[in-house]
Amino acid sequence: MATLIIGNSRTWEMVGDLAGLTPDQLRAGGCVAQRMFWFARDGDVLVLPFAPPADYLTYVTDLTGTDASSLTVVIPPPGSLGSDILTPDRLTDPSFLNDLRRSLGDRPPVEIVAVYKDLSVTGLARALAAEAALPGYPFSAQAGDALVNSKAGFRALAAGAGVPIAPGTVVTWPEQALEAITDLFDQGHSVMVKLEFNGGGFGNEILSRTDGVVPTGAPRVVVLPDRPALLSYVQRRWEWLTVGHAHRLVVERFFPGSTTVYAEFLVTDEAAQLIGVGELLMEPVAIGAVVPAQTIDAETRAELLDGADRLVESLRVLGYRGVVSADAIVTPDGQVLFTETNCRLTGTTHLHLVLDGRVVDPGYREKRVFLERDGWAVPSFTAAIGRLAAAGLGYDPTSRTGVVVTSNDVDGDGTVACCAIADDLQSAEQLHSRLAELFVDQSS
Amino acid sequence: MATLIIGNSRTWEMVGDLAGLTPDQLRAGGCVAQRMFWFARDGDVLVLPFAPPADYLTYVTDLTGTDASSLTVVIPPPGSLGSDILTPDRLTDPSFLNDLRRSLGDRPPVEIVAVYKDLSVTGLARALAAEAALPGYPFSAQAGDALVNSKAGFRALAAGAGVPIAPGTVVTWPEQALEAITDLFDQGHSVMVKLEFNGGGFGNEILSRTDGVVPTGAPRVVVLPDRPALLSYVQRRWEWLTVGHAHRLVVERFFPGSTTVYAEFLVTDEAAQLIGVGELLMEPVAIGAVVPAQTIDAETRAELLDGADRLVESLRVLGYRGVVSADAIVTPDGQVLFTETNCRLTGTTHLHLVLDGRVVDPGYREKRVFLERDGWAVPSFTAAIGRLAAAGLGYDPTSRTGVVVTSNDVDGDGTVACCAIADDLQSAEQLHSRLAELFVDQSS
Repeated sequence: MATLIIGNSRTWEMVGDLAGLTPDQLRAGGCVAQRMFWFARDGDVLVLPFAPPADYLTYVTDLTGTDASSLTVVIPPPGSLGSDILTPDRLTDPSFLNDLRRSLGDRPPVEIVAVYKDLSVTGLARALAAEAALPGYPFSAQAGDALVNSKAGFRALAAGAGVPIAPGTVVTWPEQALEAITDLFDQGHSVMVKLEFNGGGFGNEILSRTDGVVPTGAPRVVVLPDRPALLSYVQRRWEWLTVGHAHRLVVERFFPGSTTVYAEFLVTDEAAQLIGVGELLMEPVAIGAVVPAQTIDAETRAELLDGADRLVESLRVLGYRGVVSADAIVTPDGQVLFTETNCRLTGTTHLHLVLDGRVVDPGYREKRVFLERDGWAVPSFTAAIGRLAAAGLGYDPTSRTGVVVTSNDVDGDGTVACCAIADDLQSAEQLHSRLAELFVDQSS
Repeated sequence: MATLIIGNSRTWEMVGDLAGLTPDQLRAGGCVAQRMFWFARDGDVLVLPFAPPADYLTYVTDLTGTDASSLTVVIPPPGSLGSDILTPDRLTDPSFLNDLRRSLGDRPPVEIVAVYKDLSVTGLARALAAEAALPGYPFSAQAGDALVNSKAGFRALAAGAGVPIAPGTVVTWPEQALEAITDLFDQGHSVMVKLEFNGGGFGNEILSRTDGVVPTGAPRVVVLPDRPALLSYVQRRWEWLTVGHAHRLVVERFFPGSTTVYAEFLVTDEAAQLIGVGELLMEPVAIGAVVPAQTIDAETRAELLDGADRLVESLRVLGYRGVVSADAIVTPDGQVLFTETNCRLTGTTHLHLVLDGRVVDPGYREKRVFLERDGWAVPSFTAAIGRLAAAGLGYDPTSRTGVVVTSNDVDGDGTVACCAIADDLQSAEQLHSRLAELFVDQSS
């Protein structure tokens, strides 16, 4: 009985207006979709934007012990934005639906796993008479995932659950934004503004009255020394900040020098299961992760889990089902302040559900550190694997250590993501140091 | 120790763009604000858009047994839309804040009661150092009330709680709307489209392929016999349907001939207390109410309360505090389908909390029927009360029956709302029949 895996790695509610993505961003999004092979098991059916590179498919399935020949890949005809990503129009194409039904043996799949459960995915479930196979279908079919992936909605949910968040608010109008930003400036703080829907820090900007603030969690700092500068910024950027007045804007205090940690869960009807605690590497936007999180002490971890538990319980009561990551910053003085929940497969889900548990077998759970970084420029995927092997750095199933190439963006920006698996953080960092002798680090 | 009562009877999230209201609508909104006097108790402070008519104030406080001279009314200077309603700018006026602080004896109020808890109300609470006096402040200060008053958000919340709703969905794009409407048309149904934020049915339209559908819950039926007509409708009305692309749109099956019922609750940190079950009179939009609901049997009432309990529990977990009305339609074949939650003081809250319990004393709870209808044209408020008395129709505290004039829109459209209180529905209807001999019914 097949699981249907949908590589809709870029959706409107994840990254904003898809039509606004550059060709490079579209291609990169499609490359990320290929990461869904990590989740595949024998007999599964995958819907992907384009055919997977054969070498990557072989590499991944060898590591997960999956019979690659048992997998079926269905690729819909190109859509309004071409063939790089699975735009909603591609998922309703009649010939695609016929192919997909045939690939599933004209039976509904036992489960549907999608990166993001928007209306195009619930519509596909309905077209396959497979509503019951999509966890949380009733909620998602009413566009609920937009609510629980909104950074604006998050702040209300968190405040309602009594979970600590950065001081700030959610605004609809430029005047409200001016007031909220000025309030924080007047208290001597810098400000982070966040688009309601985006990810990885790319929808955030830091605003400061003074020079010298180092960005984390946003690509840049905008210096606004006085009220005219602030007025001009809000006026000039309002279209972008609200995606043409369609969305609300988060305004909150920026905490320089914070680290970003998260707890990731799998939410079912009955409960929420913790699948991992990690740290996101922000340089200044997300470029990797460390699992388990290494920089937080037991007390901070307990605070993270306490808040995350409450957030995830609220999401469960609301009706969301599936993977949730509850993200928080840890400020230099040790406060844990929650920043968002991501109700979708995240950039770290494959670490928690596959690398830690299938590639590294469950007996070694909690005995390994996973350090993943994007942006290693390589000549080709096959050449990259070859160089790793020649240098003795490739993953070794006996020692359960070494480097796994997790994402393949070679057809995009020419890079791969590498996850070093080691006994401890220091060893994992050493593996990345040695990677730097083989590949060029383009992450920052 | 004073309660602060804020008559913000028209907000963006209740009725849409305030700047789009006609002068008549603005004035009517301000008249509704005066209804807050029903909630006042000795020593309370009220913020109202304009000075209350003295005769109405005396009339209401006489019936509630409140010492009118103990009340303080604070009226902010006019705002961007004049002085008819409490626009957000009026609530931040520095001279108003000074007046208000003085009226409160330079102490925070013990409680803040507002019609709607948007950021202008949470900002006012903060300005008074009275955050703790506003139930659900943390949630509301993060604009949470927008989430729980959204008809789009409602459908996800209800689906997630397993509460029955009309078939349909929530859409962001015209293509999605076309698909959802066509789906329902193809199944032989008419469709109701609902603006994300509005009230009383005024933000709804019924769409039908055929003539002859009688509207309820929306001002009109739009006949769209074929696809070109539908395409043209969506194109022509998209700005209105989404308030300039800012909001999502609800598309659901329309059930002709349904009645509208509701269960109203007061939600606190610990629990949700049922304060009443009623029926809304839709002709074709809301023009009145019957309390308790008379047309539903015990089984239907139980279904209503079961679904409402679950909705209200979800709202409580989310963090909302205060009055909630969970509305549902009862279809001709007896289905109970929930349509929205209103997280604010509703058009019936004064019936449940004041007329039933203070005007009619608690000993008579469940022994009276309340039938309220808007739109009785009267020469003046005082003349209306005089005519009622002369006809022997005025409320009699001994028999606990008679007519109470609940709202005073004489300075607006020249009408009042009248609530007949009687032993049973038939007697209440007879009171309204006799009203028709005194006043002109302009409700429909």
